[in-house]
Amino acid sequence: MDAPFAARMGKMQKSFVRELLKVAQDPSFITFAGGLPNPVTFPIEQISIAAEKVMTQHGTKALQYGVSMGYEPLRKWIANRYQEKYGMNVTAENILITNGSQQALDLIAKAMLDPGDKVIVEAPSYMGGIHALRLYEPVFDAVPLNDDGIDTAVLAQKISDAKLVYTLPNFQNPTGISYTPAIKKEVAEIFKSTRTHFIEDDPYNELRFSGEDTPPLFSYAPELGFLMGSFSKVVSPGMRMGWICGPLHLMDKILIAKQASDLHSNQLSQYIIHQFMLDNDYNAHLKGIQNLYKNQRDLMVAAIKKHFPSSISHTIPEGGMFLWTRLPEGMDALKLFDKAVEQKVVFVPGQPFFTDGSGQNALRISFSMTPAEQIDEGVQRLARAIKTY
Amino acid sequence: MDAPFAARMGKMQKSFVRELLKVAQDPSFITFAGGLPNPVTFPIEQISIAAEKVMTQHGTKALQYGVSMGYEPLRKWIANRYQEKYGMNVTAENILITNGSQQALDLIAKAMLDPGDKVIVEAPSYMGGIHALRLYEPVFDAVPLNDDGIDTAVLAQKISDAKLVYTLPNFQNPTGISYTPAIKKEVAEIFKSTRTHFIEDDPYNELRFSGEDTPPLFSYAPELGFLMGSFSKVVSPGMRMGWICGPLHLMDKILIAKQASDLHSNQLSQYIIHQFMLDNDYNAHLKGIQNLYKNQRDLMVAAIKKHFPSSISHTIPEGGMFLWTRLPEGMDALKLFDKAVEQKVVFVPGQPFFTDGSGQNALRISFSMTPAEQIDEGVQRLARAIKTY
Repeated sequence: MDAPFAARMGKMQKSFVRELLKVAQDPSFITFAGGLPNPVTFPIEQISIAAEKVMTQHGTKALQYGVSMGYEPLRKWIANRYQEKYGMNVTAENILITNGSQQALDLIAKAMLDPGDKVIVEAPSYMGGIHALRLYEPVFDAVPLNDDGIDTAVLAQKISDAKLVYTLPNFQNPTGISYTPAIKKEVAEIFKSTRTHFIEDDPYNELRFSGEDTPPLFSYAPELGFLMGSFSKVVSPGMRMGWICGPLHLMDKILIAKQASDLHSNQLSQYIIHQFMLDNDYNAHLKGIQNLYKNQRDLMVAAIKKHFPSSISHTIPEGGMFLWTRLPEGMDALKLFDKAVEQKVVFVPGQPFFTDGSGQNALRISFSMTPAEQIDEGVQRLARAIKTY
Repeated sequence: MDAPFAARMGKMQKSFVRELLKVAQDPSFITFAGGLPNPVTFPIEQISIAAEKVMTQHGTKALQYGVSMGYEPLRKWIANRYQEKYGMNVTAENILITNGSQQALDLIAKAMLDPGDKVIVEAPSYMGGIHALRLYEPVFDAVPLNDDGIDTAVLAQKISDAKLVYTLPNFQNPTGISYTPAIKKEVAEIFKSTRTHFIEDDPYNELRFSGEDTPPLFSYAPELGFLMGSFSKVVSPGMRMGWICGPLHLMDKILIAKQASDLHSNQLSQYIIHQFMLDNDYNAHLKGIQNLYKNQRDLMVAAIKKHFPSSISHTIPEGGMFLWTRLPEGMDALKLFDKAVEQKVVFVPGQPFFTDGSGQNALRISFSMTPAEQIDEGVQRLARAIKTY
């Protein structure tokens, strides 16, 4: 048998970002490419203490098989946080623990999507999310993302035959754009009036450093949505801990998909994160990360204003890890990438974030990982690359 | 939209075993039902020490995103073990770390199976495996498992249009049966002559306590096989650490499936298990588990011989955690289950381990979790249940 792979694999390529990460280890480079949280934000000491406590107090249970929904005290903690922050009426029964947001998407797609189903994504959208969904062979349709959120007029036009809508309403990866409260309400109304299911991917929720926090789309349409969250950007991505918050009538099937996929998520890490939350001031921990990223965003925006030609537009995110710049029409970020490598700076070209091959002139620039003192120098290098191009 | 789920979900039910685990917490019960490793085998102290060392020496890396193939030193350790035990010519490049064997199956199925593809399974076969494969909508065909392994004559008849063959050659779950060396070679020859891909699910490999260890099927047909292993039965199932050992020309697509599914497995646990292997005598650790399970198997077999009617046959496994008994034809293990619950003993009825609804008269009996002093009493209770039935 010479072509042994499933048809779904024909459309898949290795992720560009992850390939990039492999080559960008050279310390003479300044990188704006990685989608990684800054490791100085990792609470190593506290995690170490939590791990020791877990092994002493719950060793047998943390090392044994667990239930597929996840460790109940952690699920309660997540539900409580939604109650406290947004007054959401959810309990542990609404929460299923996943291996980061990536698996959350995989499970939702597995439970919901047949080949050929139409999935609406933002243009641009998170490429890892597109990657996860694509394996279930949907037909993608894209709705433009404006500076205030998804284009509601286009969404309303396109939604009638959509099976799912994939949204990232807060500090979207790759653009850093957030939906305004008005857009959120309008979008939720569109979902409700058309009874359309949606995914709300919200890994950066706790990384707001300016502007006003607003409730998730899920809180307006809780019967139709899957709200995804993650500890990757606020505690540790290596522990692969995320969750799905969904309506009870849909969670049964998500649970079956989880059982079939890997029985349950890592027990030890679930116990450790819960212990970390018990023993530490989480909001103070978050404040530290928010301040770090705000400072780096401010430096990045200032450097762009100083060094880039005014023909290049950019977003000013209120949180998260990314901003998005647009070169003048006709310029190609993939070609700019080669020039940038000569200048020893890297970013992620925008095209992989679109399902229709557009976005040639866009760049994703991450400010989370770059040390503050390198940001201005990195932007200068990028400005030189633009000039030589 | 009132029926929002994917077609593949229509065939799925919640796993019987996991439902059973929920209800069997009553301490007055003796359980032969669980597929759990005995928690007295968990190296809690050593894992705790390993965790502390990892956080001190590699904290930042263990908490950061990692590569999708898995932590390289751990993959090297696994490849070395195969080299040492069986002289297998594999390196870290052949090994991809998964969330236990369950995810290994999910990824292989995702990469390889289109709906309608024929998958051959043993009759009976591991129900969690069937569960994972079923989500990819194959057509199952079953080949009987004899006392010396899969029925090679029937396999040879049925294999021509099979896409994959799913095998469990060592101390199979549920029967405890192992392929003899002669059957292994014959099966490998069938795969090679027909160029058929196969999955070799081998989570109990290190739990051999009698008989002769023989090389995996994979070692005879390394271009066609996926050999799966796991730390669940020998270190900790809660850490969800398994692997796929496969040929390089197939691993690229498995890697893509892994990236799309959850990016990579838990870094912290990969580091901890590797550290555990560096600092401890793994073979001595295994010896302790093997001795424990051998003693419990011996007690179980002796009690069955003493208390069961001679019309009931049973296997005598050379390793692993399970044995398999057959009631006389016409008896129904599901009905016996109700009688057994009255006697406060539980097992797993055989039917869910068959893809064709047969196996009504079979029982899976686990000896791994039951304390030695309860085994004879448990078998007596089961004998009483059989008598009342």
